[in-house]
Amino acid sequence: MKQTDYLIVGGSAAGLAAGMAARQYYPDSSITLIRKEENVVIPCGIPYIFGTLDSPEQNLIPDASLHNNDIDLIIEKVDEIDKEEKCVATESGEVVAYDKLILATGSSPLEIPIPGVDLGHVFPVEKDLDHLKKMLEAVNAAQDVVVIGGGFMGLEFADECNKQKDTKVTVVERLPNILQLACDEVISDKVEAKLTERGVNVLTDTEVKEINGQGSVDSVALDSGKVLDADVVIMGIGVTPSVDLARSAGLKTSSKHGIWVDDFMRTSDEHIFAAGDCAGKRGYLSGEARAVRLASVATTEARVAATNLGGIRQRMEYPIGIFSTKFGDLAVGAAGQTEKDAKSLGIDILTTEASACDRHPGKLPGCTELGVKLIFAKDTGLIIGGQVYGGLSAGEMINFIGALIQHKMRADEIFTFQMGTHPLLTASPVAYQLTNAAQKAAAELSNARR
Amino acid sequence: MKQTDYLIVGGSAAGLAAGMAARQYYPDSSITLIRKEENVVIPCGIPYIFGTLDSPEQNLIPDASLHNNDIDLIIEKVDEIDKEEKCVATESGEVVAYDKLILATGSSPLEIPIPGVDLGHVFPVEKDLDHLKKMLEAVNAAQDVVVIGGGFMGLEFADECNKQKDTKVTVVERLPNILQLACDEVISDKVEAKLTERGVNVLTDTEVKEINGQGSVDSVALDSGKVLDADVVIMGIGVTPSVDLARSAGLKTSSKHGIWVDDFMRTSDEHIFAAGDCAGKRGYLSGEARAVRLASVATTEARVAATNLGGIRQRMEYPIGIFSTKFGDLAVGAAGQTEKDAKSLGIDILTTEASACDRHPGKLPGCTELGVKLIFAKDTGLIIGGQVYGGLSAGEMINFIGALIQHKMRADEIFTFQMGTHPLLTASPVAYQLTNAAQKAAAELSNARR
Repeated sequence: MKQTDYLIVGGSAAGLAAGMAARQYYPDSSITLIRKEENVVIPCGIPYIFGTLDSPEQNLIPDASLHNNDIDLIIEKVDEIDKEEKCVATESGEVVAYDKLILATGSSPLEIPIPGVDLGHVFPVEKDLDHLKKMLEAVNAAQDVVVIGGGFMGLEFADECNKQKDTKVTVVERLPNILQLACDEVISDKVEAKLTERGVNVLTDTEVKEINGQGSVDSVALDSGKVLDADVVIMGIGVTPSVDLARSAGLKTSSKHGIWVDDFMRTSDEHIFAAGDCAGKRGYLSGEARAVRLASVATTEARVAATNLGGIRQRMEYPIGIFSTKFGDLAVGAAGQTEKDAKSLGIDILTTEASACDRHPGKLPGCTELGVKLIFAKDTGLIIGGQVYGGLSAGEMINFIGALIQHKMRADEIFTFQMGTHPLLTASPVAYQLTNAAQKAAAELSNARR
Repeated sequence: MKQTDYLIVGGSAAGLAAGMAARQYYPDSSITLIRKEENVVIPCGIPYIFGTLDSPEQNLIPDASLHNNDIDLIIEKVDEIDKEEKCVATESGEVVAYDKLILATGSSPLEIPIPGVDLGHVFPVEKDLDHLKKMLEAVNAAQDVVVIGGGFMGLEFADECNKQKDTKVTVVERLPNILQLACDEVISDKVEAKLTERGVNVLTDTEVKEINGQGSVDSVALDSGKVLDADVVIMGIGVTPSVDLARSAGLKTSSKHGIWVDDFMRTSDEHIFAAGDCAGKRGYLSGEARAVRLASVATTEARVAATNLGGIRQRMEYPIGIFSTKFGDLAVGAAGQTEKDAKSLGIDILTTEASACDRHPGKLPGCTELGVKLIFAKDTGLIIGGQVYGGLSAGEMINFIGALIQHKMRADEIFTFQMGTHPLLTASPVAYQLTNAAQKAAAELSNARR
């Protein structure tokens, strides 16, 4: 029987981040990571296998970080946890005893309960290299691809598949707008226009009723009565936490929300932590269960869990949810509450927008419009959400906005933030989007109180 | 005699930002801006007139924001302030009475007290369109350009002039490293290598002793005994605050540090504020006078001064100093204290670095290394400085770091920050530079205390 101080089950982003953080905090401990996959796919990179990357093998997480951090790697499926004996058993019968265990078992794709989902060439998005190779083969040969789900992943799939010559791609989204769970119309409308301009057919407020075909899919029937040709269907409708291992070990779990964890990422067993898609999450404003299953949240939870292995050192803030993506030359990002979300929580909000070139003067080459929308709670003046669209620096700007939300900043603190600006890299200091949108809010709040 | 509620003297970044903020906070007030220039040059854009932009006219601040915000514009030189009568008089004899006044008179280029500075084609960098046109003409005709000063502005000039065909450009910097006042070697070395690769001759630890020529410059003598050919010399060694108007009005001023202001941007007269390059500044850690004359700081001060016109509402934080720039494909940024600065203040520091691709997987097109160095105070664990180099998002990432410094965050708060990541826009969540550098620091600080 192998004995290790810290055992991690799961080798994707959360497992790896947990291992690396554990090594830094506990340099003298033995750390072991068990995962079932020979090769680990980069989850967020999956859509880019279908248009931009040369092969699925280019989208793998290298094992170098494990070796460099002296983390033992076992490639096996874990079958069982014995929490009384503090050990796990693998499929091949290997037993590994631990002092502390981190579960990072991830998630699996949600399937839609409609007729025809079991037909050939109807693909959930599994983080498995062989599965993805089969998908790629099917997409390469397809004339008509239908993507079910207009969230980030679904749209990225649609845009990438659309890069295949002569392939017609349609996205079907149940809600009135694409990206609706993360963004307001300011972003949804721009992304829909960009995808349409790039040749993707976007259908919103539309449900798939049935997938048809003989053996393999040949069409998709919509609730509108319309029928779409389809030789490939991709289901990008989200994920469900993988909790089977935790549940059979007797840990507190929920099929929908994941493994129960406290604010320090401890499960209902004091020696077992959970992090990443398999762990339960809460909205940062409401404290209610919220499905923010992002690699960025997963790795943050993993870092927190890892630091707490040797004693409680760090508390996990409820996830804000920071998203970004890019279609053609349009980058977008969203953090925190949308306007719709905030209203549904009963928060009285003030929203402001500002937009400017991301270079100054605007005559400089490469200049692109970059706009922000900020959402403030009226009573406190705190920023609770933000959205960005335009040039590529949207990816870091949304992180900046995320930091402002996480650190509970008021409008007046943000507009007097000493942002650095440069002609070739940002808007001018007079037009800088974040400070200008915040200034509008601060002035309006101040004037309303006088 | 014209009467206005709020009068702003100066039409560059600070004056304009003050006007716009005043309009938002005081929608019903009359606001007037007096400036002496017909056309206002964008200060940070000046170097780009010499290589990238088609003409100096492309680098002007448009007056649209004044008109759109109902700000009266008077183009005249202000000769005098009568603070007892609360009015100013212009060169042409116009008198404007104010309720509150904001001085945004800016700065003028420092000149070096060496023989030959008065020769023809020896140019200080004046924010004046006609001056810049003359400079451009001279640079266009030059074979050998010498730039004195290896700070941001000097290097940007050098890189832009170097884009002129057949022009040889040399930068002469007195200190051991270029950019030394804002950056540590991690940045200086990379920028020096990049400029050298692009054909700029960089001399450090070298002083100019004399500028030689008959009427016009023909060479520059260095302290090393070396003589450089030069038909143009550009002095990029910094600026001195323009305080004459304030001083003759009897306000408390210092030639070196600028117009004295309190934390609310009030001068020694309760009805007069000052903002921007003309106003005194303090280092955010030491509270001592510090020359952080950046457009970003200037506009922040202006926004603060403007909100306080109708009563004190906002305090100005001492400037952190957030810089960014770009040479070829290398973008760099710096915020807060350098390692050298921190040590000279007697602060025991811990520095960490992390570097990764700014895309994930690294096989994605456009992938560039992006690295960060973070500087923490050991006793408190607070971040006090940071530097970034690599891809273009360095411009926004350094703002993000600036926000972390301004909001006094500790290493453990930063490494558990829920940064958003995306394959096409950022490093992977496992390798994300800021969180990884912060995690190293948090672990080291934690381990040292156990």
